[in-house]
Amino acid sequence: MCTFTPVIIRRGITSCFLPPLVRLFHSSSSTMAKSKFEYVRNFETDDTCLRNCYIVVRLDGRNFHKFAEKHKFTKPNDNRALGLMTRSAHSVMEELEDIIIAYGQSDEFSFVFKRTSNWFKRRASKLMTHVASQFSSSYVFYWKEFFGEEPLLYPPGFDGRVVLYPSNRNLRDYLSWRQADCHVNNLYNTVFWTLVQKGGLTTAQAEDRLKGTLAADKNEILFSEFDINYNNESALHRKGTTLIWEKVNETVTKRVKLPNEEEKEVHVTRSRKRVRALHCDIIGEQFWEDHPDILEDDN
Amino acid sequence: MCTFTPVIIRRGITSCFLPPLVRLFHSSSSTMAKSKFEYVRNFETDDTCLRNCYIVVRLDGRNFHKFAEKHKFTKPNDNRALGLMTRSAHSVMEELEDIIIAYGQSDEFSFVFKRTSNWFKRRASKLMTHVASQFSSSYVFYWKEFFGEEPLLYPPGFDGRVVLYPSNRNLRDYLSWRQADCHVNNLYNTVFWTLVQKGGLTTAQAEDRLKGTLAADKNEILFSEFDINYNNESALHRKGTTLIWEKVNETVTKRVKLPNEEEKEVHVTRSRKRVRALHCDIIGEQFWEDHPDILEDDN
Amino acid sequence: MCTFTPVIIRRGITSCFLPPLVRLFHSSSSTMAKSKFEYVRNFETDDTCLRNCYIVVRLDGRNFHKFAEKHKFTKPNDNRALGLMTRSAHSVMEELEDIIIAYGQSDEFSFVFKRTSNWFKRRASKLMTHVASQFSSSYVFYWKEFFGEEPLLYPPGFDGRVVLYPSNRNLRDYLSWRQADCHVNNLYNTVFWTLVQKGGLTTAQAEDRLKGTLAADKNEILFSEFDINYNNESALHRKGTTLIWEKVNETVTKRVKLPNEEEKEVHVTRSRKRVRALHCDIIGEQFWEDHPDILEDDN
Amino acid sequence: MCTFTPVIIRRGITSCFLPPLVRLFHSSSSTMAKSKFEYVRNFETDDTCLRNCYIVVRLDGRNFHKFAEKHKFTKPNDNRALGLMTRSAHSVMEELEDIIIAYGQSDEFSFVFKRTSNWFKRRASKLMTHVASQFSSSYVFYWKEFFGEEPLLYPPGFDGRVVLYPSNRNLRDYLSWRQADCHVNNLYNTVFWTLVQKGGLTTAQAEDRLKGTLAADKNEILFSEFDINYNNESALHRKGTTLIWEKVNETVTKRVKLPNEEEKEVHVTRSRKRVRALHCDIIGEQFWEDHPDILEDDN
Repeated sequence: MCTFTPVIIRRGITSCFLPPLVRLFHSSSSTMAKSKFEYVRNFETDDTCLRNCYIVVRLDGRNFHKFAEKHKFTKPNDNRALGLMTRSAHSVMEELEDIIIAYGQSDEFSFVFKRTSNWFKRRASKLMTHVASQFSSSYVFYWKEFFGEEPLLYPPGFDGRVVLYPSNRNLRDYLSWRQADCHVNNLYNTVFWTLVQKGGLTTAQAEDRLKGTLAADKNEILFSEFDINYNNESALHRKGTTLIWEKVNETVTKRVKLPNEEEKEVHVTRSRKRVRALHCDIIGEQFWEDHPDILEDDN
Repeated sequence: MCTFTPVIIRRGITSCFLPPLVRLFHSSSSTMAKSKFEYVRNFETDDTCLRNCYIVVRLDGRNFHKFAEKHKFTKPNDNRALGLMTRSAHSVMEELEDIIIAYGQSDEFSFVFKRTSNWFKRRASKLMTHVASQFSSSYVFYWKEFFGEEPLLYPPGFDGRVVLYPSNRNLRDYLSWRQADCHVNNLYNTVFWTLVQKGGLTTAQAEDRLKGTLAADKNEILFSEFDINYNNESALHRKGTTLIWEKVNETVTKRVKLPNEEEKEVHVTRSRKRVRALHCDIIGEQFWEDHPDILEDDN
Repeated sequence: MCTFTPVIIRRGITSCFLPPLVRLFHSSSSTMAKSKFEYVRNFETDDTCLRNCYIVVRLDGRNFHKFAEKHKFTKPNDNRALGLMTRSAHSVMEELEDIIIAYGQSDEFSFVFKRTSNWFKRRASKLMTHVASQFSSSYVFYWKEFFGEEPLLYPPGFDGRVVLYPSNRNLRDYLSWRQADCHVNNLYNTVFWTLVQKGGLTTAQAEDRLKGTLAADKNEILFSEFDINYNNESALHRKGTTLIWEKVNETVTKRVKLPNEEEKEVHVTRSRKRVRALHCDIIGEQFWEDHPDILEDDN
Repeated sequence: MCTFTPVIIRRGITSCFLPPLVRLFHSSSSTMAKSKFEYVRNFETDDTCLRNCYIVVRLDGRNFHKFAEKHKFTKPNDNRALGLMTRSAHSVMEELEDIIIAYGQSDEFSFVFKRTSNWFKRRASKLMTHVASQFSSSYVFYWKEFFGEEPLLYPPGFDGRVVLYPSNRNLRDYLSWRQADCHVNNLYNTVFWTLVQKGGLTTAQAEDRLKGTLAADKNEILFSEFDINYNNESALHRKGTTLIWEKVNETVTKRVKLPNEEEKEVHVTRSRKRVRALHCDIIGEQFWEDHPDILEDDN
C-alpha cells in the first residue's frame, strides 16, 4: 500500500516499508525489467517534415477572450499585450534555431523555419512543442515588463500546429493571409469600438450598424463621423508585427597590450545578427525586395 | 519603406504614408485578398490520433543539465525542482480534459489521455502543444512557490511528443518503463553523489568506481560503506510522482433562511474530484488493483 | 536529340550518337552523378503502422458497375465473378504473410494482418500495394477458370486502403460492418431483381416500390408474392465469403527401402495449413468460438 | 455451425438452417446493426499528399529475380519483359489521371502526378494502390503480346510507394537518380554477361574481374576485349524508358452530304494526346528544353 501525499510536496515521504532483502531483490528485478519494457519505444511514430519545404509553426492563445477580460486588456488593442506577445516571439527566435521570419497579430504568432533546416531532424512534434513551450514560459517570464503592477492571475495556454509550404509563393501567401486577417479584424474592431466608445452606441447597436458593411463603408464611418483617417492609425495595429534578423555592426573598445608592454585602446567592429520588429506591409513586393535574404530560391 | 522600431514596442508608429484615397482602395483590396490567400489552409494535414488508443504526451526538459546548474539544484535530487514539476503537471491536469494519470521523474512528465477521449478531436498537434504550453507557463508561474528568493534566470523550455498505446498492457508497460528508468537513474545518482559528497571521491573516481556495477553492487556500497539502506530513501526519489484523480467528499457549512425567517446552519456534503500525488510502485499489480477506475477495459 | 519510338517496343533503338570519348566521359560522370542525386531518398516518409493493432487492407473494384455490364454479369449476383474474387483473395493469402482472415462480398475484399505482424516492417504502403497488386494480377490470371470463353475485355483496377484496429472488439465490429453491408445490399438487390425479373416491373417501378421499406417488408414481398424464403437463398450471397486458415492432415503413401533391401509402402500423415472459404455469419459469437485461434488476446 | 466449402466455389451453398421467423428477426436486426458498427469508419486516417508537390509513385517487382528465371528472361536484358513493363505503364497513364511523365528500367517504373493534381483528393493510399493494381492487371493482360507462347506461370506482384517532391529541381533529381541507376546497373550487367557469354568466364570469375572497376574500366574491357562500343548498345537498355504525352494531329476523311444532296469527302484534322516512349537522356537540360510543358513553374 502507498501513502498518499497532497500534491504540493516539499519533501519525499518513504511510503512502502518492506524488509531490506526483499527490496534489494526488487531493485535488481526492476533494472532487468527496464529492458523488458523498452519495446514500448517502438510505438513512437516518425513525423519528419517533408524536406525542402518551409515549416510554419503557428501558436494561438487558448481562451484569450476570457484572459483579456480578466486582465483588463484595453479595446480594441492592448499595446502591453501586443508587446508581450512580440517579446515572447523574440525569445523563441533567439532560443530556437533556423527561424527566418515570424509574424504576429492579436493572440497569434507564426514562426517560419528555413526550408533547408535540419533542426531536431525536422521532427514536427519537437518543433511545435519547443515553440509552444518557449513562447509560453517567456510570456509569464516577461509579463511584469509589460504589465507592471497588473498581476498575472493564472498561467496562460497556447496551442500550436505545423504547416508545410513547398514554394516561396505558398509561404508568402500564408503570411499575406495572416496579415489580411489582421487588417480585416482590426478595421472592424476599430470602427466597432469607436462607435461604442465615442459614438455612444451599445455593443449590440454597433454590431448591427456594421452588419454587411464593406471596408470602404467602415473607412467612411471613421472619417465622416469621427474624423479618423484609418490609415493614420497605429501601424502596429493595422499591420501586425514582423520579426526578422538584421545584421548590425557593433563597435566595442578594447584595451590591448602591445609588445612593448604599453596598453592601448582599440576599436573593434563586429557584425552580429539581432531580431528586429517591423510593422509594415508584407503582402506587396516591396518588403521582399528590401529583404532578399529571407527566402531561399525555389530551386 | 517601413520604419524599423526596436523589438520592445510600447506604442505603434504609423510607418508608411500614402494619400487616403489610395489607402482606402488598398484596404478594400486587402479584404478581397484574404479570400485569395485562404487556399493555404489546405496545406494543413490531419494528425488525428487513432481511436481507442491511450494517448501519451511526454515532456522533457530542454538543456536541463545547464538549467539545474545555473539555478543551483541540489544533487542528486532537488525537492524544490521536483515539487515545481509536479505543481506544473497538476496545472496541466486541471486545465486540460481527459487526462487520467500522469507520471513524472527528474525533468520529464508523461500525461495519459483516456482512450475514448475526443478532446480537440484527438488532434496530436493540439494535444501536445497544449500540454507543453500549459506546463511551461505554469513552471514559471509557480517558480516562486518552490524556489522562494532564488530567482528564475531565464524562461525554460520543454519538448514534447505523442505516443499511442492500443492496450492496457502496452500502457502499463510504458509507465513501468518510465518508473524503471527512474529507479535505475536514482540508484546510480544516489550512490554516485554519496561517494562524492560523503566518500570524498572526485566525480571521475566515482564514475570509475561504478563502472560495470549491478543494482545489487550499488545497494551493497551504500549499505556497507555508508550505512544507507536505499529502500529507506525518499519514495519521491525512488518511485517518482504519479498523479491521479481522487474523489473527495467536501462538507461545507451554509446558512439557509427558513420559511419562518429564522436562519439555520446546514452541512452540505459534495463529492468532487481532485488531483492526488503518489510516490509508489506502479509496475506491480497492487497499484492497479487499488485504482481500478484508471484504465478502461480493452473491449 | 532523341529518337521517338512508338510505345510498343520490341527492340531498343540506339538513339543519340556521340563520339565514343565524349560518351565515355559522360558515362563515368553519370556514375558519379548517382550519389549526387541520392539525397532524394530522404523525401520518403515513414508510414509504419502502429504496433499491436490489426492491420486491415480493403480493396474495392474501380468502376465495377461498368465492368460488370461490359462482361455481362448476371443480376443480382454473378457466381463466376464472386468465385474469381475469392480465388484472387486466396492467392493473396497464400502469397503474402500474416493474413489471418479475409472477408469479401460484391466487388470488395478485406484482408486482416495479425496484430503482431512485422511483415515489411508494417509499412502501410508496402502492405496495401502488395495486396492490390497480387489481387489484380490474380484476377486476370484466373479469369478463364471462372469465365471460360467470355473474354476479359480490359485489365480491371482495384483501389486499396489501410485501417488499423487496436482491439478484438474493434476488428470484429469492422468485419460485422462489412457483413451487415452485404446483408443489406443483397436483400435489397434480391427483391429488386425479383420484382423486375419475375414481377415484370421496370427498374424504375421496382425502385419506387422499395422506397422506404424495412427488412421485414422486403422479406414479406419475397415470401407472399414470389414464394421465396430469403433465408433459403444462397449463403454465398447472403453472408459473403470468409477465408480462414485451416489445419488439415494429409496422408501420403511413400515407398521406403528397408535395411534388408526390400521396399515397403508407408503412410505418412502431415499436418499443413490451407485456406478455406466459408459462407456463414461472422457477426455473432458462434463463429469466433468455433475458431478461437484467429484473434490474439488483447493483452 | 457453418458448412465448409472448398475455396474454388462455383455455386453458393445454403449453410445454416434456422426456422424462417427467427431468421427474419435476425435479418432486421442485422440492418439495425449496420449503423451500430459504422463507428469503425472513424479509424481510417487521412493521408492526403501535401499540396503543390509532385507525387511520385514507384513500383518495384516482387521477387523478380526468381520470376525472370522461371520465365527464362534473356541476360542481361529481355526486350520482351521491358516491352511488357512499358505496355503496362502505358495502360496506367491512359487509365489514371494527371500523370505527366513516367520512367522505367529493369523491373521498376515511376509515375509522376502533376503538382496541382487533385485526383482522388491526393490521397496517397488511393494513388499508389490504383497504380499498383492497374499495372499488375495490365502485366498479365498483355503478357501474350510480348511473350507469345511462353506461358505465364503465376501472377506476379509489384509493391509501390509514394514520395513527394516540392520543387522542379527535386523532381528532376529523382528522375536523374533512377536513370543514373539504370546506367550503372546496365553497364555492369553488360560487361558481366559479355565476360560470361563471350569471354567464357564463370559468373564467379566475372564478378571477381569487375570488383573495384570504374565506369571507364568497364568501357575499356568491352572496347578492347570484345570490340563493343558501349554507347552503341541499345538506348532502351542504357537509358531506360521515358513515357510522356505528345500532341498529334490526326487527319481523318469524312463523307459529308452537301445541301444539294451531293456527297463529298472532307479531310478533318484533330489534335489529340497520346503516350510516347523515349529512350534518351533525361539528366541533362536538353530533354527538358525540348519538352517545356512537362514541369510546372515552381511559383
